[in-house]
Amino acid sequence: MNYKIIGYTLGWVLKIEALCMLLPLICAVCYDEEQCFYVILTCIGIAFAVGALLSYKAPKNKAMYAKEGFVTVALSWIVMSIFGAFPFVFSGYIKDFADAVFETVSGFTTTGASILTDVEALPKSLIFWRSFTHWIGGMGVLVFLMAIVQLSGSDNIFLMKAESPGPNVSKLAPKVKSTAKILYLIYIFFTVSEIVFLLAGKMDLFSALTLSFGTAGTGGFAILNSGLANYTSYQQIVITVFMIIFGVDFSFYYLIMMRKFKDAFKLEEPRAYLAIIIVSVTLITVNVAPMFQSFGEAIKHSAFQVGSIITTTGYSTVDFDKWPAFSKTLIVILMLCGACAGSTGGGMKVSRIMLLLKSIVKEIKIAAHPRSAVKVKMNGRFVEHETMRAVNVYFASYMVIAFLSVLIISIDNFDFTTNFTAVVSAISNIGPGLAKVGPACNFSIYSPLSTTVLIFDMLIGRLEIFPILVLFSTSTWKK
Amino acid sequence: MNYKIIGYTLGWVLKIEALCMLLPLICAVCYDEEQCFYVILTCIGIAFAVGALLSYKAPKNKAMYAKEGFVTVALSWIVMSIFGAFPFVFSGYIKDFADAVFETVSGFTTTGASILTDVEALPKSLIFWRSFTHWIGGMGVLVFLMAIVQLSGSDNIFLMKAESPGPNVSKLAPKVKSTAKILYLIYIFFTVSEIVFLLAGKMDLFSALTLSFGTAGTGGFAILNSGLANYTSYQQIVITVFMIIFGVDFSFYYLIMMRKFKDAFKLEEPRAYLAIIIVSVTLITVNVAPMFQSFGEAIKHSAFQVGSIITTTGYSTVDFDKWPAFSKTLIVILMLCGACAGSTGGGMKVSRIMLLLKSIVKEIKIAAHPRSAVKVKMNGRFVEHETMRAVNVYFASYMVIAFLSVLIISIDNFDFTTNFTAVVSAISNIGPGLAKVGPACNFSIYSPLSTTVLIFDMLIGRLEIFPILVLFSTSTWKK
Repeated sequence: MNYKIIGYTLGWVLKIEALCMLLPLICAVCYDEEQCFYVILTCIGIAFAVGALLSYKAPKNKAMYAKEGFVTVALSWIVMSIFGAFPFVFSGYIKDFADAVFETVSGFTTTGASILTDVEALPKSLIFWRSFTHWIGGMGVLVFLMAIVQLSGSDNIFLMKAESPGPNVSKLAPKVKSTAKILYLIYIFFTVSEIVFLLAGKMDLFSALTLSFGTAGTGGFAILNSGLANYTSYQQIVITVFMIIFGVDFSFYYLIMMRKFKDAFKLEEPRAYLAIIIVSVTLITVNVAPMFQSFGEAIKHSAFQVGSIITTTGYSTVDFDKWPAFSKTLIVILMLCGACAGSTGGGMKVSRIMLLLKSIVKEIKIAAHPRSAVKVKMNGRFVEHETMRAVNVYFASYMVIAFLSVLIISIDNFDFTTNFTAVVSAISNIGPGLAKVGPACNFSIYSPLSTTVLIFDMLIGRLEIFPILVLFSTSTWKK
Repeated sequence: MNYKIIGYTLGWVLKIEALCMLLPLICAVCYDEEQCFYVILTCIGIAFAVGALLSYKAPKNKAMYAKEGFVTVALSWIVMSIFGAFPFVFSGYIKDFADAVFETVSGFTTTGASILTDVEALPKSLIFWRSFTHWIGGMGVLVFLMAIVQLSGSDNIFLMKAESPGPNVSKLAPKVKSTAKILYLIYIFFTVSEIVFLLAGKMDLFSALTLSFGTAGTGGFAILNSGLANYTSYQQIVITVFMIIFGVDFSFYYLIMMRKFKDAFKLEEPRAYLAIIIVSVTLITVNVAPMFQSFGEAIKHSAFQVGSIITTTGYSTVDFDKWPAFSKTLIVILMLCGACAGSTGGGMKVSRIMLLLKSIVKEIKIAAHPRSAVKVKMNGRFVEHETMRAVNVYFASYMVIAFLSVLIISIDNFDFTTNFTAVVSAISNIGPGLAKVGPACNFSIYSPLSTTVLIFDMLIGRLEIFPILVLFSTSTWKK
């Protein structure tokens, strides 16, 4: 294990985090929040000092292989979350350190689950920082790192492979660095567009910024206790559209950018993703229509909630826990499904579900006709055995981790629906669940043990499971 | 598609079913149930007549390939269930035909879920038939068919492969027929042993027979409205032990029979199965101890419920829906897990879960050390790629079918816990679930649509998913 390169990279991550904290610092200045200004300044100082210390000297041996890659990624997110929690703790707005870490992990992993019972009690600068963690986490800080510095001299593909959150890096440009830049360009373009559209709808700048950060990263921290219920229809519709936009594979936008329209529309995943959204909105609209004054209202709220859940954002304009069982079950299924691979969204990803379904169909055909040669195809090409294996192992791991987590947090003695949806919400990085963790509730009900399990689940989900498992595997640390 | 051989086999299945109905007929005589006597006699007549008609002439072309095998197996269970439902309908004790089919499917698939609100209102002969369907379904009627007639002239391995419920046939003896005989020998030996032990515990013959049928087939139909709560501790313990016995791979007993002790104890699955039982009983005992008068009582009830659920029997001595969330969650996990492959139990099977866990561990090792050669081993041998693929596809299918089923039955607007556990209970062939389908409740709450979905789930689970999917796949019926 090359500890030096891991420490060096973590140092850079902390320096970038310190840089990111300048924005809430400016916010504190704008809103005249003196206490927060000094708290955030202190936190910047600490993060930068530790970061500078760790990355003071570039290690001679810059070799970073898979093992180091996974460990670095896993540790980056943990370290970032711990340092990111300081402003909440030092300012005294979140008393319990574990709760503060839960909040920042929820932010960076773009989950949006909160232990706060009264968000509005927070100073603006802290709300800003909380929402900004979504934007940072959405693309993954390491992608950013790749875009500006070249860590180990050569294109570090292992690190990029391990850092699965955010768009898939390998496929766009031949050089990792340029790919990362393209991705950031798309990310910034859509974020700015959303801000502009929201401002055009008479939203104040602070709300437009924070809500756009939450949409872009598919995070979902609201800035009002009422969630997104009290915004205008225009604003809610703008957010619906942008949530859905950020759930699409960024390769699609890249292909459009390159004017490769044919290739873009040949991608099966975005089409399936859109089909799922349309079918779900239709089914839920019909199911909940009697609860709303007009059919239009029903469509608007269905579309918002479906867009929010499938992209794993987690904003809500209504308390869908009060919806009929059918709509709630469909929402749980969308929670498991998630957005497109290569988007900023979480969950299992539409493409994985597609590959699983295709492999089932293939198996039925083989069962009936054992001698026939059936192969799974995706985007017009045969799917490699390795890909299929990875999907299967991911799916099994997701389920095993989910049920084990539900078992542990059930010690707190809440009902099965609450626990199951809390865990799925955490692993898929959504935010709300059902019942006692529904959109109108929060995660403050859980004990420190359960909070820890859910922190672990959020990280595991965001990093697509394996980096965290590798970090805790004994075989990684042997000799 | 060779329709003639399918019809011919179905004919034999019906003739055997008619034969099986002679037992409840004798029961009707013993208990002087005149109406039931004539009803059952009529049903025997119908089943035999239709069966004789279908199997009147052996088809010249006896070829039965995979496709025919799957279709025959799927249709056998459906036809058996429909004809098996006649006594309940004709006698008027179950008015709705769909409900009666639910009850017989639940019987033959050894689920044990019931739509009856008052079991004790049924005449003895019908209760006997209801429990006897468990015993028939436990081993699978086609295995029986194999044991007594040689359908297509040669050993029909396709049929045996498709008929997955009941012990795995392929591995014991070189000839299918002799393997089937060995399996029946073991099955009958343990069933008779249980009856003897129960009679020794002063249970009446009728109860001893019906409860032993339910244990042997891992079915779970109780004959009293109070379930198994009102039996003596001795009787409950005997049933606990036999439930666990019937959940073990029959190959284990065969190896013991052949005095191959070393090979028997080298099997990983029975050991893991026993380990899961011991750990679960310990955890639940600690969790529920405050609810019982003595620690011994807590152990007894924990062991009974764990044994009942992991073997997918579904008997209950207490209403575990009133237990704390931790125990209930563990029970849900045991429901998914199921017994050993090659036993009469259902569920995913311990060996599948083991293979999934092993493949996850392997993936973590490969992630950290990409160049290392890691292979999954089971029982000291490398697991073939095909086996792994089958396990993965099975797992994905199970989950996809489960969540789709939950979605459809949620139209009835019961809570998520009820629907989720009802479906898992159906697919894993257990019987009770939690909440509104808990041990103290029954499945009469569901609409005809949901009942149909659950019938489908029970069949799908019992036949290890694929025969039913093959039956409904368009590719099976093309040209």
